[in-house]
Amino acid sequence: MIVKVSPKGSMDQLSQLEVDRLKKSAKSTLYQLYRNCSLAVLAAGLKTDNSKALFEQYHDFDIHVLQRERGVKLELVNPPEQAFVDGQIITGIQEHLFSVLRDILYISDRYDSLKHINLTNAHHITNVVFDILRNARAIAPMKDPNVVVCWGGHCINAIEYQYTREVGYQLGLRELDICTGCGPGAMEGPMKGAAIGHAKQRIKNARYIGLTEPSIIAAEPPNQIVNELVILPDIEKRLEAFVRLGHGIIIFPGGAGTAEELLYILGILLNEENQETPFPLILTGPTESADYFIKIDEFIASTLGPEAQKKYQIIIDNPTEVARIMKKSMEQVKAYRRSTGDAYQYQWALKIESEFQLPFVPSHEVMANLDLHFQTNKAELAANLRKAFSGIVAGNVKSETIKHIERDGPFQLKGDPKLMDMMDKLLSAFVQQQRMKLPGSAYIPCYQIVK
Amino acid sequence: MIVKVSPKGSMDQLSQLEVDRLKKSAKSTLYQLYRNCSLAVLAAGLKTDNSKALFEQYHDFDIHVLQRERGVKLELVNPPEQAFVDGQIITGIQEHLFSVLRDILYISDRYDSLKHINLTNAHHITNVVFDILRNARAIAPMKDPNVVVCWGGHCINAIEYQYTREVGYQLGLRELDICTGCGPGAMEGPMKGAAIGHAKQRIKNARYIGLTEPSIIAAEPPNQIVNELVILPDIEKRLEAFVRLGHGIIIFPGGAGTAEELLYILGILLNEENQETPFPLILTGPTESADYFIKIDEFIASTLGPEAQKKYQIIIDNPTEVARIMKKSMEQVKAYRRSTGDAYQYQWALKIESEFQLPFVPSHEVMANLDLHFQTNKAELAANLRKAFSGIVAGNVKSETIKHIERDGPFQLKGDPKLMDMMDKLLSAFVQQQRMKLPGSAYIPCYQIVK
Amino acid sequence: MIVKVSPKGSMDQLSQLEVDRLKKSAKSTLYQLYRNCSLAVLAAGLKTDNSKALFEQYHDFDIHVLQRERGVKLELVNPPEQAFVDGQIITGIQEHLFSVLRDILYISDRYDSLKHINLTNAHHITNVVFDILRNARAIAPMKDPNVVVCWGGHCINAIEYQYTREVGYQLGLRELDICTGCGPGAMEGPMKGAAIGHAKQRIKNARYIGLTEPSIIAAEPPNQIVNELVILPDIEKRLEAFVRLGHGIIIFPGGAGTAEELLYILGILLNEENQETPFPLILTGPTESADYFIKIDEFIASTLGPEAQKKYQIIIDNPTEVARIMKKSMEQVKAYRRSTGDAYQYQWALKIESEFQLPFVPSHEVMANLDLHFQTNKAELAANLRKAFSGIVAGNVKSETIKHIERDGPFQLKGDPKLMDMMDKLLSAFVQQQRMKLPGSAYIPCYQIVK
Amino acid sequence: MIVKVSPKGSMDQLSQLEVDRLKKSAKSTLYQLYRNCSLAVLAAGLKTDNSKALFEQYHDFDIHVLQRERGVKLELVNPPEQAFVDGQIITGIQEHLFSVLRDILYISDRYDSLKHINLTNAHHITNVVFDILRNARAIAPMKDPNVVVCWGGHCINAIEYQYTREVGYQLGLRELDICTGCGPGAMEGPMKGAAIGHAKQRIKNARYIGLTEPSIIAAEPPNQIVNELVILPDIEKRLEAFVRLGHGIIIFPGGAGTAEELLYILGILLNEENQETPFPLILTGPTESADYFIKIDEFIASTLGPEAQKKYQIIIDNPTEVARIMKKSMEQVKAYRRSTGDAYQYQWALKIESEFQLPFVPSHEVMANLDLHFQTNKAELAANLRKAFSGIVAGNVKSETIKHIERDGPFQLKGDPKLMDMMDKLLSAFVQQQRMKLPGSAYIPCYQIVK
Repeated sequence: MIVKVSPKGSMDQLSQLEVDRLKKSAKSTLYQLYRNCSLAVLAAGLKTDNSKALFEQYHDFDIHVLQRERGVKLELVNPPEQAFVDGQIITGIQEHLFSVLRDILYISDRYDSLKHINLTNAHHITNVVFDILRNARAIAPMKDPNVVVCWGGHCINAIEYQYTREVGYQLGLRELDICTGCGPGAMEGPMKGAAIGHAKQRIKNARYIGLTEPSIIAAEPPNQIVNELVILPDIEKRLEAFVRLGHGIIIFPGGAGTAEELLYILGILLNEENQETPFPLILTGPTESADYFIKIDEFIASTLGPEAQKKYQIIIDNPTEVARIMKKSMEQVKAYRRSTGDAYQYQWALKIESEFQLPFVPSHEVMANLDLHFQTNKAELAANLRKAFSGIVAGNVKSETIKHIERDGPFQLKGDPKLMDMMDKLLSAFVQQQRMKLPGSAYIPCYQIVK
Repeated sequence: MIVKVSPKGSMDQLSQLEVDRLKKSAKSTLYQLYRNCSLAVLAAGLKTDNSKALFEQYHDFDIHVLQRERGVKLELVNPPEQAFVDGQIITGIQEHLFSVLRDILYISDRYDSLKHINLTNAHHITNVVFDILRNARAIAPMKDPNVVVCWGGHCINAIEYQYTREVGYQLGLRELDICTGCGPGAMEGPMKGAAIGHAKQRIKNARYIGLTEPSIIAAEPPNQIVNELVILPDIEKRLEAFVRLGHGIIIFPGGAGTAEELLYILGILLNEENQETPFPLILTGPTESADYFIKIDEFIASTLGPEAQKKYQIIIDNPTEVARIMKKSMEQVKAYRRSTGDAYQYQWALKIESEFQLPFVPSHEVMANLDLHFQTNKAELAANLRKAFSGIVAGNVKSETIKHIERDGPFQLKGDPKLMDMMDKLLSAFVQQQRMKLPGSAYIPCYQIVK
Repeated sequence: MIVKVSPKGSMDQLSQLEVDRLKKSAKSTLYQLYRNCSLAVLAAGLKTDNSKALFEQYHDFDIHVLQRERGVKLELVNPPEQAFVDGQIITGIQEHLFSVLRDILYISDRYDSLKHINLTNAHHITNVVFDILRNARAIAPMKDPNVVVCWGGHCINAIEYQYTREVGYQLGLRELDICTGCGPGAMEGPMKGAAIGHAKQRIKNARYIGLTEPSIIAAEPPNQIVNELVILPDIEKRLEAFVRLGHGIIIFPGGAGTAEELLYILGILLNEENQETPFPLILTGPTESADYFIKIDEFIASTLGPEAQKKYQIIIDNPTEVARIMKKSMEQVKAYRRSTGDAYQYQWALKIESEFQLPFVPSHEVMANLDLHFQTNKAELAANLRKAFSGIVAGNVKSETIKHIERDGPFQLKGDPKLMDMMDKLLSAFVQQQRMKLPGSAYIPCYQIVK
Repeated sequence: MIVKVSPKGSMDQLSQLEVDRLKKSAKSTLYQLYRNCSLAVLAAGLKTDNSKALFEQYHDFDIHVLQRERGVKLELVNPPEQAFVDGQIITGIQEHLFSVLRDILYISDRYDSLKHINLTNAHHITNVVFDILRNARAIAPMKDPNVVVCWGGHCINAIEYQYTREVGYQLGLRELDICTGCGPGAMEGPMKGAAIGHAKQRIKNARYIGLTEPSIIAAEPPNQIVNELVILPDIEKRLEAFVRLGHGIIIFPGGAGTAEELLYILGILLNEENQETPFPLILTGPTESADYFIKIDEFIASTLGPEAQKKYQIIIDNPTEVARIMKKSMEQVKAYRRSTGDAYQYQWALKIESEFQLPFVPSHEVMANLDLHFQTNKAELAANLRKAFSGIVAGNVKSETIKHIERDGPFQLKGDPKLMDMMDKLLSAFVQQQRMKLPGSAYIPCYQIVK
């Protein structure tokens, strides 16, 4: 089956030179990445977080870039059926396909060609993240601060899912926009809820921003409510995009990935230079999940201390209160940005240390050598803990890392015995609460705590 | 508490003469109706189908029409809290308030003033229904046929509700618009589902049409997804609006009201003059509700016969199929209208006999005298059965009729014993399945079958 | 040649009852009026102010209202060629045709049917004018005051025409909207100029409002820049529409019609009850026309006195200054309306005496009996003088009145000798300056001053 | 006087890196170019084609790029007054200022940074022109071919100017978009005319594209009707943009620049590879200018021969016919592009030899060495003649070249005596008809024909 798809949203016109280079890339590793991300977007309706299985099922899928009278077209060979309704591609998926083209092939090409960009320079990285978001038209200069980032697990239970919808609904009623990592679970619920809230408020231009990255997109494919999909090059740039684009963060229950995200934002907010920056951070869930947040809070208290605890508030079973606080905080964020001259739509002034910016590639060696000890520099401890959880996420869902684990066994995590004990308990709780993988498969840990 | 509300959607400018007349009406019965409908719209978030209780709770609510620099404003005295988000009225409710103003005060005033309209003349009634819909901007001349009417109970169980959402989702994916009676249950689910489908297809101008009438609006208040609310003067004009505005009908499980609606449309489709008219009619529900449709189908078979059964199809547990058939049928509807020169947005050519058009006011006497016998003119039998069920609905939810029942006891229904037996069984099944009233209160029948 | 035209702008959907009534009207006097106005709109490109000649040239033109799938259509039989570009009707003309349908057939029908409207009651007249404007969607409640009415002759010389364009250009640069009587000359120039000014300011929703009436439309057909055409029933309602809809008035050089308009607005502004009302009124023209305004000013000084002169200012050869004053005055108008609670888009509070409201039909008898004497009630004198000039306009361009003049000779105007002398001089100057009729034909006065 | 201007249209968000680089450039030659182009845009209302005088008058003008909460802002120091209306900058000028920022600073920066672009490679040049147009959002993929390029002199007489307006009006009535070199005269008239035509057809998204280049912009500043202003790096890229973006060309009377343009397009259309390409080319003017076209036609006949004459048609005094032919030709252009798969909005397939693409910088030496002899390769002769006229244009209006002429005397043009004689006659006619410079100054030729 061969289908031709017209552009929608982005990248409608390419130069001949660009098309030639894309064709050339077509034999490359980059092309494989492009094909896989496109497949992920097309398979978005499937209930799976196993990208390996997905790629095997659609091994004969292919995609080509063509040039036509009205601009570029995509030719899909053997695409998944669920992307279509009565033979017509779903418009949301059509848009996502062109977001992938834009962010994978075009952006890569662009950075290959630029002489003056150095991707190990912190300032350059921040500018590249901005450039990618702007190129995706995700920088909306005339809007006041109103983007709420929602983090949380892709596998949460039905009560938690319903709760994320209700929070989203209350955010939508308050005309706030939603930004998530764009997979299922806590990344989808708030958007669906907000869509109803926005409809009741007659908001036509609501933003449902999905920020993802190539190695995670297949495991957490974007739901089609996302109307601004941006694929950042790696996890660290994606995290930076969240905190510079978003004006506040809500964290729902989740697993290792959610822990990574919490440690990331705490590590940044603990930075001396960010002490004055208003940044609303709320951890919330239904009554049934209260225990989850108690455990997380205890872990933060014991590792990063009360200073870190002051950076967030925990609200149990009160979607209205969560949304009300977020709405109010937007005024403070706006006032602070105006007083400091920082952009409303991209928080240039937030200081992010390079240990949070440079790509962390978890190998057995790197993981074994992480410095996991208590220390007075809480931001640095947060950075190291963040890396530990990041490695575990990779071992759970990223196909490359999974292969390494299959070959060399689980990662070995070592460090201060007391800290190791705390990590062990937290991770075990995640496993027990089925937060590591979608239900249906038994979870085999990709790590071992060496005590 | 006093709140001023600006116009949104309709009726932004009134002449001084009109405002004067509205003020004058303000002491009248009409004004009471207006106040009550406005209250119903404001109370839309409450879970209740008891309008009496609602009116008692908000006995100190009041509403006034003011004239200001930018046009008319509404002053609300002691409005229900749930209409507001952090002190701001929800935009959807704001729109609905002005729909009420338009359809209750303004339209009444208009028909009072017109010399040439006779509301007992069938042709005039059809023109009045058109005029009301056009005045509400619900006639969209440039759109192709795509309005799917969804009928079904306001109190349905969770599985049925989820099913109506899924059907709505599939309709939305196919770019079909939704029209319902605009209460909760089967009238809300399809709209919420369609909203997600429309979002995925990036449809910005989707229509969620709610058709209601003054005596039912408080019992089935419009949800705020409804972006075109029209309040027809009575149940018969509301039913006529459904079948002339809609291009196809889906019937979900429901109680006496749903039975009334089915009998109404069958009575019309059985009319000789409508034999050629394509009008897709689907009865559908989840597997768990299959039995419900078997009972309905049997009742129709025994009363109106196989001729009537041919007018609909029953589809169990297949939302995609339901939506696919509706979508396909739209092409037939369009072709037929074009070939006959009938309007795409208002089916003038459909013949509706005056027994379906003239207001039926159920009193004990009228109900007792209904001609409930088998007869060869199936359309006439359908008309009489429709009236019987209409009376029962009134006895269940309309405050006036409830008072009569309280005073004089239940309605007495008499007729052919076999027919009476069949009605008894059907109604008992509705009672047993809790389709007559929202759960929480025991249902006391407002009728007695006299065998 | 037969052409079918689809609706554009207004009146896209009619009920069957309405279409039936329109068809019935089709044999009536009303239908003749409708046909003639439609012809005037179609012939708008022709350079003529002779409606009689126009009607003779297109005696075989006809127009029918049809009902089709997407609403009403118009069938044109033998329409003038200049309404078409390569066989396609010009969109502006298409809109105007449906404005005529709306304002001639539909509005007439509506007032025929209304029991409670009395067209001899001043308050009712003001409400009817509002209703006609609102029905034409010419009441824009969310806009701030910015409508500048431009009055002046339909036959002005090239220098004056260029001057009206420049004033229009400066108004457009200041984001002001234009309202005129919608013929050629001073009614077209400001719109063309404003169109360029608006384009430079990137204003997409500029309003070019044309207010006309059936007996004048053929002599002063609407240019197609007019994007809101409203046909009021008679000259008095048209004048009332100008002063209630507009927020300020500019008067360019003109003939008897322009004098009528100036006397009308002065008569109103001299009313005791309007003393506080801010209403910018500017008389302006190029240096070459300075003498014209000196004569007018002298006439006003001698008849209505310095009190009247205070109501306007004369600005010679300074388009920028004219526009700047208008722009500034809008703020005062807005402040006054807000403080008094009067509508921004329809000046309800302006007092207009019934002598300015009731239709004045000039016959030989009525004209001969006008009370043309100096008097202390300046507003009343203005009213009488206004009627005298109104009769002369009718004798110049309205086909009915022209016939009467042809039969019975010129109108006889009598009164105070000094006043008669002044009128004689003013009118002679108009004749001499070729302001009474388009050049090319010798002007034969339709009046005689009886001294 | 210091004014801050917010973005409008383009370039609203810059990264910190970009702003830094712009600031750095601010001391450079590039910055001077940027400042001068900005000044040209601000001075657009002035009647002058003398850029030197302009720069002297506003020697204390300066411009800075700032970064603010809502994105970049421009700070203007001592800007020309005519850019403002009552202290507010005209929106059209505001847009143009940001077009200058985009095309001068940003694009330069971009090409400085790109490793893989070679500006001496024909294919790369074509891609760069595309990239500049796309970056300016001047590639409109969903539109059908409808862009008419209008060429002609910036100093034409009143009758010719009025004629260009009438042609523009007829093009506008036919819903065609206009593209010119965006100065006064024949570059402004068609846009003003089209604006009226578009208004009558109710076209809201009409395009008025202005293509200019840094060395000409001050002499031919963009009028503010231009709503898509693009500044190409040099005259050759600007000419390439005209013929790849436009779908047909109309040539009005003009001087040396117009002759250059005619020779450019003929040189391309004479190329063997373009024989099949439909490309409507019309030379037109009022009756009074007929002689001008006779002379041009004779010159082409004698130099490039009948083969070249077949590429264009001359239409005298018939705006409607000109527009009608253009409109019809659009269908052929569309059909051809579709059949060959070439883009509707950028004519990739048109072959342009590098002698037409590489920047021609006229010095005394280069001009003296031009090969001006008859030859069989007509395209090459066209190329050489084009260069001769291009040099003369530079000597007339570009400030750099004017300085060279002042220092070293007029250019010396040598070649075949007969050809020289023909050029002499043509140029003398231009001088005599006052087509070389705006009236008011005596024209001193910047060239000498050496016979």
